[in-house]
This record gives sequence, structure tokens and C-alpha cells, in this order.
Amino acid sequence: MSSFTRVSGRAADQLRPLHITRGFTKHAEGSVLIACGDTRVLCTASVEERGPAWKKEGGWVTAEYGMLPRATHDRSRREAAQGKQSGRTQEIQRLIGRSLRACVDLNAIAGYTVTIDCDVLQADGGTRCASITGGYIALAEALRSMRKRGQIKKDALFGQIAAVSVGIVQGQPVLDLDYSEDSGCECDMNVVMNEAGQFIEVQGTAEGHAFRRDELNALLDLAAKGIAELSAAQRQALDA
Amino acid sequence: MSSFTRVSGRAADQLRPLHITRGFTKHAEGSVLIACGDTRVLCTASVEERGPAWKKEGGWVTAEYGMLPRATHDRSRREAAQGKQSGRTQEIQRLIGRSLRACVDLNAIAGYTVTIDCDVLQADGGTRCASITGGYIALAEALRSMRKRGQIKKDALFGQIAAVSVGIVQGQPVLDLDYSEDSGCECDMNVVMNEAGQFIEVQGTAEGHAFRRDELNALLDLAAKGIAELSAAQRQALDA
Amino acid sequence: MSSFTRVSGRAADQLRPLHITRGFTKHAEGSVLIACGDTRVLCTASVEERGPAWKKEGGWVTAEYGMLPRATHDRSRREAAQGKQSGRTQEIQRLIGRSLRACVDLNAIAGYTVTIDCDVLQADGGTRCASITGGYIALAEALRSMRKRGQIKKDALFGQIAAVSVGIVQGQPVLDLDYSEDSGCECDMNVVMNEAGQFIEVQGTAEGHAFRRDELNALLDLAAKGIAELSAAQRQALDA
Amino acid sequence: MSSFTRVSGRAADQLRPLHITRGFTKHAEGSVLIACGDTRVLCTASVEERGPAWKKEGGWVTAEYGMLPRATHDRSRREAAQGKQSGRTQEIQRLIGRSLRACVDLNAIAGYTVTIDCDVLQADGGTRCASITGGYIALAEALRSMRKRGQIKKDALFGQIAAVSVGIVQGQPVLDLDYSEDSGCECDMNVVMNEAGQFIEVQGTAEGHAFRRDELNALLDLAAKGIAELSAAQRQALDA
Amino acid sequence: MSSFTRVSGRAADQLRPLHITRGFTKHAEGSVLIACGDTRVLCTASVEERGPAWKKEGGWVTAEYGMLPRATHDRSRREAAQGKQSGRTQEIQRLIGRSLRACVDLNAIAGYTVTIDCDVLQADGGTRCASITGGYIALAEALRSMRKRGQIKKDALFGQIAAVSVGIVQGQPVLDLDYSEDSGCECDMNVVMNEAGQFIEVQGTAEGHAFRRDELNALLDLAAKGIAELSAAQRQALDA
Amino acid sequence: MSSFTRVSGRAADQLRPLHITRGFTKHAEGSVLIACGDTRVLCTASVEERGPAWKKEGGWVTAEYGMLPRATHDRSRREAAQGKQSGRTQEIQRLIGRSLRACVDLNAIAGYTVTIDCDVLQADGGTRCASITGGYIALAEALRSMRKRGQIKKDALFGQIAAVSVGIVQGQPVLDLDYSEDSGCECDMNVVMNEAGQFIEVQGTAEGHAFRRDELNALLDLAAKGIAELSAAQRQALDA
Repeated sequence: MSSFTRVSGRAADQLRPLHITRGFTKHAEGSVLIACGDTRVLCTASVEERGPAWKKEGGWVTAEYGMLPRATHDRSRREAAQGKQSGRTQEIQRLIGRSLRACVDLNAIAGYTVTIDCDVLQADGGTRCASITGGYIALAEALRSMRKRGQIKKDALFGQIAAVSVGIVQGQPVLDLDYSEDSGCECDMNVVMNEAGQFIEVQGTAEGHAFRRDELNALLDLAAKGIAELSAAQRQALDA
Repeated sequence: MSSFTRVSGRAADQLRPLHITRGFTKHAEGSVLIACGDTRVLCTASVEERGPAWKKEGGWVTAEYGMLPRATHDRSRREAAQGKQSGRTQEIQRLIGRSLRACVDLNAIAGYTVTIDCDVLQADGGTRCASITGGYIALAEALRSMRKRGQIKKDALFGQIAAVSVGIVQGQPVLDLDYSEDSGCECDMNVVMNEAGQFIEVQGTAEGHAFRRDELNALLDLAAKGIAELSAAQRQALDA
Repeated sequence: MSSFTRVSGRAADQLRPLHITRGFTKHAEGSVLIACGDTRVLCTASVEERGPAWKKEGGWVTAEYGMLPRATHDRSRREAAQGKQSGRTQEIQRLIGRSLRACVDLNAIAGYTVTIDCDVLQADGGTRCASITGGYIALAEALRSMRKRGQIKKDALFGQIAAVSVGIVQGQPVLDLDYSEDSGCECDMNVVMNEAGQFIEVQGTAEGHAFRRDELNALLDLAAKGIAELSAAQRQALDA
Repeated sequence: MSSFTRVSGRAADQLRPLHITRGFTKHAEGSVLIACGDTRVLCTASVEERGPAWKKEGGWVTAEYGMLPRATHDRSRREAAQGKQSGRTQEIQRLIGRSLRACVDLNAIAGYTVTIDCDVLQADGGTRCASITGGYIALAEALRSMRKRGQIKKDALFGQIAAVSVGIVQGQPVLDLDYSEDSGCECDMNVVMNEAGQFIEVQGTAEGHAFRRDELNALLDLAAKGIAELSAAQRQALDA
Repeated sequence: MSSFTRVSGRAADQLRPLHITRGFTKHAEGSVLIACGDTRVLCTASVEERGPAWKKEGGWVTAEYGMLPRATHDRSRREAAQGKQSGRTQEIQRLIGRSLRACVDLNAIAGYTVTIDCDVLQADGGTRCASITGGYIALAEALRSMRKRGQIKKDALFGQIAAVSVGIVQGQPVLDLDYSEDSGCECDMNVVMNEAGQFIEVQGTAEGHAFRRDELNALLDLAAKGIAELSAAQRQALDA
Repeated sequence: MSSFTRVSGRAADQLRPLHITRGFTKHAEGSVLIACGDTRVLCTASVEERGPAWKKEGGWVTAEYGMLPRATHDRSRREAAQGKQSGRTQEIQRLIGRSLRACVDLNAIAGYTVTIDCDVLQADGGTRCASITGGYIALAEALRSMRKRGQIKKDALFGQIAAVSVGIVQGQPVLDLDYSEDSGCECDMNVVMNEAGQFIEVQGTAEGHAFRRDELNALLDLAAKGIAELSAAQRQALDA
């Protein structure tokens, strides 16, 4: 294991370079461009004065996810032109929405829906995790703006949410996989945690071989380290 | 915790009564009705002589999932009439297909696609896990029939796959949640494992509160116990 | 004609073995598994407190029909996955709904919609007729439960509705065709009647050759005999 | 019953005025405008050099049906804009196609598909019957043109097909219902026959009350009379 | 250029023969069959007592466009069967609606929507222009009928709208292209004007080569001449 | 007119600040971020080795257009989630494709399809014109890369294509409208020209009042001036 080297030269427990640009676009209540290495996702948070149709009380936070057709190495077909979102897209946007709702007091935003749009401008692995980590910042910005406009009376946010992928590549557990690692890994896992190191969501999948309990534990340790760093970066971005 | 009692009277680590009926319908190469308590899923495996369009070599195993409109307490809208499968349906059928592919040598079934249809006749929690556990048996039946007809030369199946849900209900980790437990739980997790106790898929979601590492560990222990029992039942059903 | 023998060994005017299982599933207000030979259809009746959108007064009875993908000899594509119901499916569910409305006083169920879901678990010919015959029982069960709960004040059901197929096979008029007979017949007809032997719906189609008036008459005689037996079986099932 | 008078002043067994215009449009191989009273349908037959995808041998005849949005008293929504054909539309076009195939030797048109488009310009009841009666003429024209161009070697048409509606209005069996009669009738039936008075298709539906065998017989007698007149008019139009 | 002759024998600045038939169908508030040479479009105007959903005040005028499948030389697929309107169809119906709204006082028809359906029975070039020119007459008829019924208090129509195509064929600017000219032209332009010779819409497209300003000017001169003649014909039709 | 001032302070014939960033994303053969004032569009050109299905010879250039949901002041619904592209979207992407094909020798790229994806990250008026002007650069980049890889033998590009909007605001013809000008203008026109000042496409629409010939001329003069400047900027960007 000691001889293993990541193509990127990163240490096994090292995140990719992270860049967070707040206010990337001007119309949205929250707008963040997050770059995790070569993965770049534009996350906007839109506040609308309507509750969800299926729920009588409280507000709602939801997410939509998309990938520009040429965000990827080969062009993929535009979902709008195909007339439907793929199963993968729906699975991802459900995950983002569920994760971000975990840090919002929905009663505090009664009468409002906040939609987090995560659009991948360039993909290099880990787009769903980048969407959650960046989407959290856009959401926090939007909630601040609601507070300023008097749309909400108190802080609706409790805690922070961030996400990172971990996986086993050539027998070695590594943090924050890029596309080349992701497509060749033996198992990969997306972990969503709060800033206290507790789990919001854990999704692990064996790709090449079934993974053992000790491997799972090693991966979760890596994830915890990565999330702590991402949480710190989120705080820094929001304090700027 | 000692005073906690499940509505069903089950122990915290006790599965629901399990009934497996092979050959429930006559046309499919594999056909199994699996009942996990009041959850009943008809799993059929269909063999078609065509490879997947997007893959030049080897065969394929895929899954589709559906719920009869009145499988649930209130009638849900028929997806065929709505003109699309929900995000939830697509997420579940992707999980079933991915899990079952983990025990099949796709090269050994080159030129064939095996489709596992999991249709929920009655739902009481845990339908995706029952689909995987029952779908495995239908798949095994279908592969046997392919062997008999000379469509495949060697055993294409390695290992067994089963799935179970675990969750925290009123602070207590419990095994194999029924609907009432599932809808009130604080966190729930679907675990797919092989008969050797290794993980194929782990999907845990915080519902009420973020969960700690020790809670995660307790849940995984319960899942391992349940999967061992389900695996034994699968072997028994296939040997009958 | 005297030398003709049906593959099943049945007499020309003989129904297939009929099995009716009430309460096959637990959530629906009415739930019946009907088996006509190897054709098995799960019929549920669901009561919802809403009138039809397009009708200001009275209640409504409607039907939906589906076939599990592997109910048939070869797997057919799942309609939910294809994004639409076939013309055949729509034609059948319109027939079922129209037929069952013929025995219900819609004003007596004002404010309610009863949906009859007919899902074919296994197909061997005659699925639309089995759906009507079984759907009637589920409907009757649901109306009884509405009465018990005080949702309706008086009996909303007048008469009984049942259906059967007839056709000309190798020059011989026969009753209740199975799939092998149906696919090779020269003309086939679906007949829906009430318990008084009056017609609700008659749908006859020449397959191989145009049929004469005397052939039509012979087929209608067979249908009347079959419906009388089905009606008796319905009464017996409902009295049980 | 003797005092019954039709609003139109027609006798009970009298067809509406029939006008057949051949060559109404110039591009199609067959093009007929048929007017049955105020019901006007443009029927075109298009010959394409392709067999049906799902059938290895022989040719095919198929039909499509549409109604211009304001063919009816109130504007109906355009199906192309709604993104799907209604169940009613599909049911009708399946009927037209099935009926017209009954008079064509599909092997004689091997390699070709003839599509009959029936578009209702103005509706006043009986549009599906007018489509079949007019569609037959367009089909005959198209087959003649195929013969002339040497696309087919022999006459592919055997017999004639026409259709008419009959129904019971205020207790009286009548022929060829217009819209006002159709919407108020107690039962109505669409009958498709050949020129020899044999049945191709019979579709009867009770609207207000179940109908008796003697009523059915009276309706079929009326239909036979009407079809004989329509067949004569078809021959006259084709001989012109 | 002097030696150029149009296949039709028309002069470069000559319209095709124009025939306008008012009251072609009976149900619509306005119904016009317009024939520009071999192009024939049925334009109906339907008045509905509902404002547009997205607009709180005033009324609305909208248009829908369709082509019968065999209006063209080769059969095109039916849009209703394909499940969507093509981009071309949507572009055309947006143009028709926008053009006709330019001559209507929407406040004067508050609470009403007028839908102009333009269905091409036979196509030989210029169908969108014929739809606008004929649609105007149907619209005028409908507004008159609204006035008569007291649905509107004052004249809602100001000015007239007509449309014509112009293009450069073999280097020669010509008016009112038929299909053979249209498919071979170097540039074509659809011009919508009012009766005062002012522009409502100008849409010019280079097909073979980019066009110069002087060519544009020559085309606009031809269009103005054609529109003046079409406007006169509209007045004559409406006065008849 | 002399007292008229644009909100932005620009002169009537002044373009918005233009920024062109080549290589904004890394996967596409051509990738350009174009900013026209606050309008920002990401244009990528993707080369695929396949000809268009409907065309036997030569290559193809096509375009797709999309707007991120929160590119606009209020969030618009995601087209992929709605299951279809709006008429507006289709109209725009047809215009972009048609315009860019006007400068490509399709025979020279035989066997290849180049897709220009124009995705609006932020909208402030003139998105279709920015898409064409930026899309041209992405296209030129992609054709260069095809040349380098030996996919094409000779230069496939002839001339340059750019687009700009012009309109009449408060009676004054102005160049390059931003959103606030666009939504309040009396008429607006999108003009696509080549670098020689010839027209590729002209689309003018009266919004408030029909426009006169002299107004049209003034607008075309402004457009010519703007296009000349945009063409120069394109050359500069491509030479960089």
C-alpha cells in the first residue's frame, strides 16, 4: 500500500483544491460557484412565496440538478430535449434536497419554498457532493436575505451540511475521488455529514467487490476528515 | 431502552415472518412471491436473447419496480397513467439492478439480458429490500433454467445477495421495519449484503436527527444478523 | 363438427375453472383475486372522497387496467417505463369502467369516486372479461363498506354485471376462449351482460373471415349460458 | 311508437344525405371527402414503401384518426398540443384499421404500408363510421394507383367494407344517428359489414338501460339495410 | 433577368389565385377556408369565456397550427401520435398568434380567449402566410359575433393584418412563392403588414447566400404590393 | 429625441461591454463564455463522428439552447423537469443552428456533426444574439481542432457570423437592448449578418405599434454598425 500513488499526486486523505465564489450570478437570493478540482457546479438558491402543494403547514426546501451537455468528456444528450430527467438525475436531486432539509427549520420558513438549483458546468467526479457542499452556502445566503427582508423572523438554519466522496482505489481507501479514480474504483461512498461529524446520509456501493466492515470504517474515517475541512471552508466563505 | 416494545411484539433483532413461494406464476423463467410480514412482492426473472444496446460484450441483468396502485393504504396514482415513473421508483429499481448484478458473472451470460420485475402487491414497509431478497431467488431460478437449456455453459452466479432495513425507532435500533415503524423512525438504513457478510450497498438516511457513528455500528450489526437469516431462507427455498 | 375437441378437453359450452378469492389484499375497500383457468387478475376497488373534476353532481366509477410485464408468455415492456398506456390498455379500461357504471346509481355515491384497478398477474386469454367479472365483486364489496361507514345512505348497486368471451374456433362456436384458442380463432366476441341476460356491451370482431348472422346468434347463446354461471358464482362469492 | 318523429324528419330506417367527393386533395394516392349529413371527414390513403417493423412478411394497412379542434360544438383541445392521443382516438383508429384490413390481401401488398388518415373537419355524430366508409374508398383508390404503377401485381382488395351506427332513441330503433340522437340514445351500436351482409365488427353499448336480444336483432336489421345502401354508394363513387 | 419565367407562368410580382370561403364549417364563431393557389388552410376562430391563466386583466388571442399528415407530397408523421408538436409548428403558431394580436384591443375582449386554429388541408408553400391572412378573417367574424351577442361592447379590431412570402429565385425577387419555388430559393422572407403598409413582422432567412440590403429592399417592395391586394380581398370577403 | 437617455448611459448606437473568454471549460472542442453586459452565455462546440440520420451526405451543424432556471429575475421552471422545451427555446435554437450553418461548408465536414450548446448562465436581454456571436467562436475553435486532428482536410468555415438586437425605445432606435429596454420597447429586431455586412437572418417584431419602412431602415443601419464591431471582436478573440 505504501507504494500507491494517486495520479493527481494527492495524499490518500487529501481533498482536491477547493474554490468557492459567492455571488457568481446576480438574480438569485443565493448564488455560489463551487470548484472541487476540475468539478465546477453553479448552485443558486431561489426564494418563492409559495408553500409546497402537498403540505399544509411550514415551508419547503427542494433541489434540482442538471448537467450541461458538454460538462462531461463526451457530450451527453440534453435532458430537456429528451423530454425527461434520467433516473440518475432524479436520484441525485432527491439526495441534495433531503440533505439540505436536514439543516433547516421548515416551520421557520412557513409560506416559502427555497429551490436549490445545482448545475454542473464542468464534471470531473463528485458532482453530487459538490452540489451539496456548495448548495448549503447558497441556501445560507438565501436565508440571510429572507431575514433581512423580514420574510422570516428567526434563524432557520441549524448546523452545517457538507458532503464528500470516498472510495477504494487499487486496494487503498482514498478521499474525494476525481473522475478517473471514480470510474476505476472498487467501491465508492458518498457521505453527507453535519459540522458535528454526525451522519445525514451514507450511500456506499460495491463496484468491483463486496467491501468488508473494516474497509467501511476506514472510508468513514476519511470522510469525517474531509467533511471537517469542507465545513471550515464553508464557514470561511460565509464570513467573507 | 429496556421498556421499549415494538407494536408487532417482535424483539428488536427479529425479522418479520418470511414466506417464499416459488413458481407463483407460470410464464417467467423465475417467479417468486415473497412475503415479509404484510409486504408482498411478486418477483419474476425474464430471459431475453439480446445484449444491452450500450454494451458490446457480455450480458446484462436489470430490474424494474412497480407498485400496484392500491398496494398502499391510500391509492396512489398508476405510473403508466401518469406517463412516467417517479424518482422514487427509478431510484429503487436502479438499486435492485445494481445489487443483483453484484452476484452475476455477466460474461457468462453473454448475449442475454435477464430482467427482474418486482411488483409490489401489498406494501407494509421494506418493499425494496424484499424485492432484492426475492429477486435473487427468481434470478437464481432463471439462471438454472438457462443452464438446462444450454444457453449458458457454466454457473453464472457467485454468492447470494439479500437485503434488509434497519432503523432507530424511539431511540432503539431495530431490524426489519414495518410501515408504521418506518414512517416514524429517526433514521433508517437499507443494507444489501452477500452471504459472507460483506457489503454490496449501504444507504442510510437521517430522518429526525443526524446519527452518530456508534448508532451506525449498532444498525450494521442488526443488519448482519438479519441478512444471515435471510440468506439461509433463500438457500432453503432454492433447495426445495 | 362432431369430431372437434378443445385442447383443454372442455365442452364447447364449458367455462374454465373459476376461483374467486375475496380479501386477497388488505388495504383496499374491495379486493378480489379472480382466476379463470390460468388467467389471474387482481381487482381492487378504492373509495376516494372526491367527485370527478368534469362533473358537478353525483359520484363516479372508473377503472384502470394493467398487465405485469411477465404476465404473458414473452415479457412485454412496462407501460410506466414506456411513458404511456397502449391503445389496447386504454380501450380495455374504458370498457371495464363503462360496464361497471351500468350497475351503479351514481347519484347515490355523490361526492365519491370508486376506482377499480384490474392488474393481470398471469394472462391466458380473456383478461378483460375476468376483470369485469372480478371487478364487479370488488365494487360490490366497496359499496358495502361505504354503506357500513355511513358514506352512502342506500344501496347504490342495481343488478350484477359479468363478462365472457366467445368465438369461432375451427368452425365451432365455443365459450370462454383461452389464449391458444383466442390467438387462432376466426372471430371473437366479448359480451357483457347483467344477471337478467340483457346486454351491457357486445364487441365482436372478425379475425379470419366475416361472420354470418347465424354465427352471431350461436355465439350470443353461448355467452348467455356462460354469464348465467358467472353471475351465480358472483352471488356465491359475495354471500360467503 | 308510431308517434315518434326524428328531429331531422328522417324515417327510422333512413340514412342521412351522403356526399362522396373523390380527389379532394391532390398529394395522396387516395383522397376522399365524405359527408354523412353534417359530419364531414377527409380520408386520405398514403402508400409508403416499407413494411411494418414488427412483421417480417406481407404488407400492412393502418389508420389514424383525428378531429380538428373546432370540428365540434365546443372547441376541444388539440391532441398534438396535449402531447397525446386520447383513449377515444386510439380506440377509433384501431377500429378503422382493423376493419379495413379485413378486405385487403396483405401478402399482395408485401413491402408496402398503406396509411388511412381520417380527419374530421366537422362532427355531427357517426364520425368513426363515416371514416370507415370513406376510408374504404380512399384505400381502393390507392390500391388502384399501386396497380397502375406496377407496385402490386394483382388485385389486393376482396369485397367492400362500410360502417353505420344504429341505436335506440326514445324506445325506437333508428339508423344512422346524428349527434343530438347519439347523445340522448339509450343504446348505440356501430356495425361494420361487408357488401355480402356479413359482420366485420359489432360494437354495441348500453347507455341508459341494458338492451334485450330482440332489440339487438332490430338494430342489426337496420344496420344491414343501411350498409347495403352505403355499399352501393361506394361502388358508384368508385365507378365514376 | 428579363428571360426569367416562373414555372407557374406568373409575373414576378403576381399573387397566386386567391379563394376565400367564409362559413366553411358550422360550429366555429369564425370559419374560413383560404386557398392561395394549391395551398388550402382551414382557419377557425373559437370564442371561450376564460381569460388566459397567466394574465389578470384583459382577454387574449392565441393561435394553433397543424398540418394534416398527407397535406404534403410525402406523408409526414401525425404530431398527436408522436406526442409533441415540432419546433417548426410551434414557431409558426407563435407567429400567427403574435401577428393577429397586433390588431386586437385585448382590453375590449376582457374575460374571453379567442383561439385561431389553422389546419392545413393541402400544402403548396406559404402555409403560415395563408394562415395569417385567412385567420384574420375568421377572427373578424368571431369578433362580430361577440358584438352581436353582447359579449363585447365596442369594436375590438383595429386595422387589418395580412401576410405574404417573398424570395429570390434564380436571382430574381418574386412574390408569393409556391412550394417548388420555396424549396429552391436563395433567400425567403415572410412579411406581415397591416393595411396601412406598416410592418408587424419581418422574417427573412438566407438559404443559399447571404442577401444584400438592396435585395432586401426589392423584396419588401414586392411584399407591400402583395399585402395591398390581400387586404383588399379580405375587405371584400368580409363585406360579402 | 435629443433629450432621450438610455438608463445605462450608453449612446443609442453603442454596444454593451463585451467580454469573450475562450476555453472556459475543458472538455469541449470549442468552449466560450461570452458576456454582453450582464448577459452571460456559455457556448460549447462538440464534435461527434456521426452524420445526421436524415441526410445521406455531408456533415451537419446544429444548436441547442437552454437557460439555467435562475438565470432570470424570477426563477423559471427547469425544462428537463417539465418534460419539454418551450416553443421559445425551440425557436431560438433553430435560429442559432440555421445562422451558424450559413458559414460552414457542410460537405467539408462529411461524417461529422458539430453541436453548439448555448446555455445562459445569466440573462439580461439579447441571449439569442449572444449565443450566435459566441457560438460562432466556439464553432471556429472546434473546426480548427478537427483540422489539427486530421478529421477534415480543408478549411470548412467561410466568413464570420454575428448577431445583435436593435429596437425602438421611447421612439428612438437603439442598438443592443438590455432586458429593461427589451421589455419596454415598441419594436425589436434580431439581425444576423456576416462580416461583409450581408444578411443571414432578419427577424423584426412590432411590440407596441406597427413600424414604418424608415424605422426599419434606421434599425438595420444600427445593426450593421454593431455587427461590424462584434465581428472585429470575434477576430481578435480567435487570433489571441
